[in-house]
Amino acid sequence: MQLGMIGLGRMGGNIVRRLMRAGHECVVYDRSAEAIKTLAAEGAKPAADLKGLVDGLTAPRAVWVMLPAGGPTEDTITALAGLLSPGDIIIDGGNSFYKDDIRRAAALEPKDLHYVDVGTSGGVWGLERGYCMMIGGTKAAVDHLDPIFAALAPGLGTVERTPGRDGRDPRAEKGYIHAGPAGAGHFVKMVHNGIEYGLMQAYAEGFDILKNKESKELPEAERYSLDLADIAEVWRRGSVVSSWLLDLSAIALAENETLSNYTGSVADSGEGRWTIMAALEEAVPADVLSTALYVRFRSRQEHTFGEKLLSAMRNKFGGHVERAAGG
Amino acid sequence: MQLGMIGLGRMGGNIVRRLMRAGHECVVYDRSAEAIKTLAAEGAKPAADLKGLVDGLTAPRAVWVMLPAGGPTEDTITALAGLLSPGDIIIDGGNSFYKDDIRRAAALEPKDLHYVDVGTSGGVWGLERGYCMMIGGTKAAVDHLDPIFAALAPGLGTVERTPGRDGRDPRAEKGYIHAGPAGAGHFVKMVHNGIEYGLMQAYAEGFDILKNKESKELPEAERYSLDLADIAEVWRRGSVVSSWLLDLSAIALAENETLSNYTGSVADSGEGRWTIMAALEEAVPADVLSTALYVRFRSRQEHTFGEKLLSAMRNKFGGHVERAAGG
Amino acid sequence: MQLGMIGLGRMGGNIVRRLMRAGHECVVYDRSAEAIKTLAAEGAKPAADLKGLVDGLTAPRAVWVMLPAGGPTEDTITALAGLLSPGDIIIDGGNSFYKDDIRRAAALEPKDLHYVDVGTSGGVWGLERGYCMMIGGTKAAVDHLDPIFAALAPGLGTVERTPGRDGRDPRAEKGYIHAGPAGAGHFVKMVHNGIEYGLMQAYAEGFDILKNKESKELPEAERYSLDLADIAEVWRRGSVVSSWLLDLSAIALAENETLSNYTGSVADSGEGRWTIMAALEEAVPADVLSTALYVRFRSRQEHTFGEKLLSAMRNKFGGHVERAAGG
Amino acid sequence: MQLGMIGLGRMGGNIVRRLMRAGHECVVYDRSAEAIKTLAAEGAKPAADLKGLVDGLTAPRAVWVMLPAGGPTEDTITALAGLLSPGDIIIDGGNSFYKDDIRRAAALEPKDLHYVDVGTSGGVWGLERGYCMMIGGTKAAVDHLDPIFAALAPGLGTVERTPGRDGRDPRAEKGYIHAGPAGAGHFVKMVHNGIEYGLMQAYAEGFDILKNKESKELPEAERYSLDLADIAEVWRRGSVVSSWLLDLSAIALAENETLSNYTGSVADSGEGRWTIMAALEEAVPADVLSTALYVRFRSRQEHTFGEKLLSAMRNKFGGHVERAAGG
Repeated sequence: MQLGMIGLGRMGGNIVRRLMRAGHECVVYDRSAEAIKTLAAEGAKPAADLKGLVDGLTAPRAVWVMLPAGGPTEDTITALAGLLSPGDIIIDGGNSFYKDDIRRAAALEPKDLHYVDVGTSGGVWGLERGYCMMIGGTKAAVDHLDPIFAALAPGLGTVERTPGRDGRDPRAEKGYIHAGPAGAGHFVKMVHNGIEYGLMQAYAEGFDILKNKESKELPEAERYSLDLADIAEVWRRGSVVSSWLLDLSAIALAENETLSNYTGSVADSGEGRWTIMAALEEAVPADVLSTALYVRFRSRQEHTFGEKLLSAMRNKFGGHVERAAGG
Repeated sequence: MQLGMIGLGRMGGNIVRRLMRAGHECVVYDRSAEAIKTLAAEGAKPAADLKGLVDGLTAPRAVWVMLPAGGPTEDTITALAGLLSPGDIIIDGGNSFYKDDIRRAAALEPKDLHYVDVGTSGGVWGLERGYCMMIGGTKAAVDHLDPIFAALAPGLGTVERTPGRDGRDPRAEKGYIHAGPAGAGHFVKMVHNGIEYGLMQAYAEGFDILKNKESKELPEAERYSLDLADIAEVWRRGSVVSSWLLDLSAIALAENETLSNYTGSVADSGEGRWTIMAALEEAVPADVLSTALYVRFRSRQEHTFGEKLLSAMRNKFGGHVERAAGG
Repeated sequence: MQLGMIGLGRMGGNIVRRLMRAGHECVVYDRSAEAIKTLAAEGAKPAADLKGLVDGLTAPRAVWVMLPAGGPTEDTITALAGLLSPGDIIIDGGNSFYKDDIRRAAALEPKDLHYVDVGTSGGVWGLERGYCMMIGGTKAAVDHLDPIFAALAPGLGTVERTPGRDGRDPRAEKGYIHAGPAGAGHFVKMVHNGIEYGLMQAYAEGFDILKNKESKELPEAERYSLDLADIAEVWRRGSVVSSWLLDLSAIALAENETLSNYTGSVADSGEGRWTIMAALEEAVPADVLSTALYVRFRSRQEHTFGEKLLSAMRNKFGGHVERAAGG
Repeated sequence: MQLGMIGLGRMGGNIVRRLMRAGHECVVYDRSAEAIKTLAAEGAKPAADLKGLVDGLTAPRAVWVMLPAGGPTEDTITALAGLLSPGDIIIDGGNSFYKDDIRRAAALEPKDLHYVDVGTSGGVWGLERGYCMMIGGTKAAVDHLDPIFAALAPGLGTVERTPGRDGRDPRAEKGYIHAGPAGAGHFVKMVHNGIEYGLMQAYAEGFDILKNKESKELPEAERYSLDLADIAEVWRRGSVVSSWLLDLSAIALAENETLSNYTGSVADSGEGRWTIMAALEEAVPADVLSTALYVRFRSRQEHTFGEKLLSAMRNKFGGHVERAAGG
């Protein structure tokens, strides 16, 4: 079927490619003419602007917006709403806040425009492996788009089938789900990313403990100099901590066991923070997910103001003077 | 080759089975005559006691102790030390504290007995999938036992090969490593379990947030009733949070989406606590791994004394009276 | 001077009392006629409704709203805005979210109505000891109300003077500050409460560790049966952990050392959650304040869904069956 | 009465001074001749070595050891044990691990030497304000030393009396307690310090959130530039977060509101770590106390290895490249 794609960055571009490989027709637009040209050379139909993209599609149209959350996505959806016809579908495949989805879907509904939010995981691997998709929206719109989702998803793949799924929605086993009404897709994707932070931090702490087992502060008889690349590798087989994130760790450690090519200043996206806000609203204790986020906050500072206050209190109470390397 | 196995529980019994399938010869002992009989019926050579087991093996002997950490393991190793001959090998495959390994290896060394510690992960799946093993001990002893480890390990399996491992120890890709001297195997296994707790807690919090999105305390327009079994399933394909623990979650949720067959009272083994002690000794911040352990502590109590003190302070300051269900 | 008070609960009532003791004149209203009657008997001027209260005051009027945050406060302020005259002042002394203050002040400004937010700490002790106040609003309005704040605040008191404060705002030493423009008062109070949660939790955990030192799970030679009431008492003198919260703990423990009169189900108010949201917005790591809040969330549930999932994963991996009391 | 003091550092020297002010006689020794000379000039009786100190005291002797925990304390106690006579008392007033106390008391008991452990809080303020003391040992020995403890303790002081203490041990209200048998004093002091870390961290995070409310990352209308020195000051009066640590924060912030005279590299002593180990042994969830410790560990590093691993995983999954200042 036909799909319009707005935003041809790493994610948008590869989604187009995977769709075209499956025989779908894509009309593409990006604010970078270069990006459009590249995709056009691979078989996509270029559009000069939003209007051109809309005109290049046959109704009922499906337009996928794959832009940074916030302003760029919001503005584009507003513009599209003025160009599309009743029955058309806008898909937000980016990382929007799910409450924005709820608001947008309600705003588009009187115009008979459908709004579908798709949380998409796949990273740089999605083109080859397929994308895991969590979808929110009306049943009609999501069903209409099924050929698109089926083409993008990984399919059954080589993972072992989960027993006891007879009678359940078969889409989950192919790599996509219709999670619920507008916003549900992004909500599930948001929590997915929150979990991702927690998983990453669990490995980070574990490898930190392994690494520092060679510390000169330990009694000599209790020091080990461990091969972290081999440890990551061995855990990939038969161990309960095997995971994709471990596979990626094994790749990074095999490349450079000291990870000296990284500083350790770690960015965070909105989804980690929104996950905590959801936990606060629901009164769910989310210690690990919060901590995983705070480690990232901390990693981007030389020292917090709070740490200075700790030193100040120690000085005022016990007369302690700071040392650069404490004990 | 020949191996003596002491302890024929779930782990010990299946290790014997997997070794026999690979053509190795096993002499087995357990304090339960029934357990011995079962394995004997499957081809193992039964021993009536430790002495019988030692006599049933040809020197240099290899005896694998697969018993609960602490007293049972300690007593058995002490007894074995009096029965074995110079050049024999004692393998502790259980979950011993690594400092006990260091002590034991040093105590056995003057008698020319070798001590090998094997951290073993595999659960109820190990018989079929193979065991992931982290091994500590002398090079000579570990090399001598290589046929045993090779038979127990999963082998290359179906996971994608990690690029850039040329020239590295090929055993890691087969599912076992020689981590270092005595204790190193159990140390790596200990941290492995610490990580496991952290990973599990990350999923637990995430699914808790998904589950409570249907809470009546939320504005109605922001509630979703999510299918957790389908969510776990869809994340198994193409998503960065895919892992074995997620596979297991998907199985459990497909069986019973409300998990009403569990109370939520969660045990912890020594390894989670020892991981935190290691972090304390190394001055490594281990927030997530600690929290994951504390959640388990908390899960086994109705209320902590600390919570009562919180209520008491609130009462004494603000005159607040407790409600069973707070707000 | 004159003050109108709306809301004669524990806080509002005592504020009126303390003001009257200092010679101020109070016009009072509450939806409970009984509450009005009680205060009137103590010298306050009763009003039958909001209009009556406004009519009972001479312009420029000052009306203090002391109601639950959210609906009650919002509705009352909206109603007052229709009754007051240019130059009058509305004071929100409750626990409103500071972003609501910013919005309200902006909405009232075109009508030339002043909006002052006062974060008030004092609990059941405020009547006698005075209230600590953190104030937001325009300089003119805050200065105009100074006699009110001066009367409510504790004054210099018996605490030792902080050296080096010459040239600084003397109000801080009397127990009130003009923190900044609208919302700043409630923002500071909000963080104040966030800190309170953290402080409380630090004591809670410490006393929990003291309490459980008598646990039968410990080696007998390492058990102590400690007198928690005496410990709380001794720390009140000369120790760096002395504080008001410790004083309150000492009172509660002297009353009932096992705290068996409390269940340990702990409520939380909006301010603890908003503090974490502020930390998220600012990218400040707030581990302790978050945890303190999560402990309260957890304290109100028998088990979390997350804990059930932990049990489920343990069962599916290792075949572990839950025990009511784990190990 | 008479007391021998070994170790004339900040704590030991001031304890001697406070005892002499109360009319007690002190025989003093330190490895620094200068330190001995200083105290001798103030009225103490100098000793040239341990033997001289023992000889300078009349039996039954009381010798207070005030040295760094670990080697220095251990060696000195061992040496004293060879010099003292049956019925003499050794007091360890430092920060020893309580399990060392248990061991030492048991070792000295056959020689009829008494061992008393005193956890002492007071910092640089103790000389004037008195020391809060938590004492472990036999009733006989602790009672014998009562005049010493009474002189060192703050006494009733100016804090309000806790109601309901009739019939309870009056020593707690004077600032010292007999907590239990050997080790109990240091155990209580250890948890005291654990709590201290937690309290400090609660303030640290709160002030960090206040400080960063001026961050340029926030919408301009929601920024405040708050006076932290005045906030700390105002909370000292009438607020539930008032405490000694807050008093100290107020002093530090009045001196230098940006705390630019501190780097924020924060040391930790053994007691914080031991508190967590005790929590692990007792299965008490100690999230806040652990986190407070981990913040200090983290504060002494530029980046953890764990943070580098986070960056590595992000790079391998999503192709993310690190930025020095993330988002």
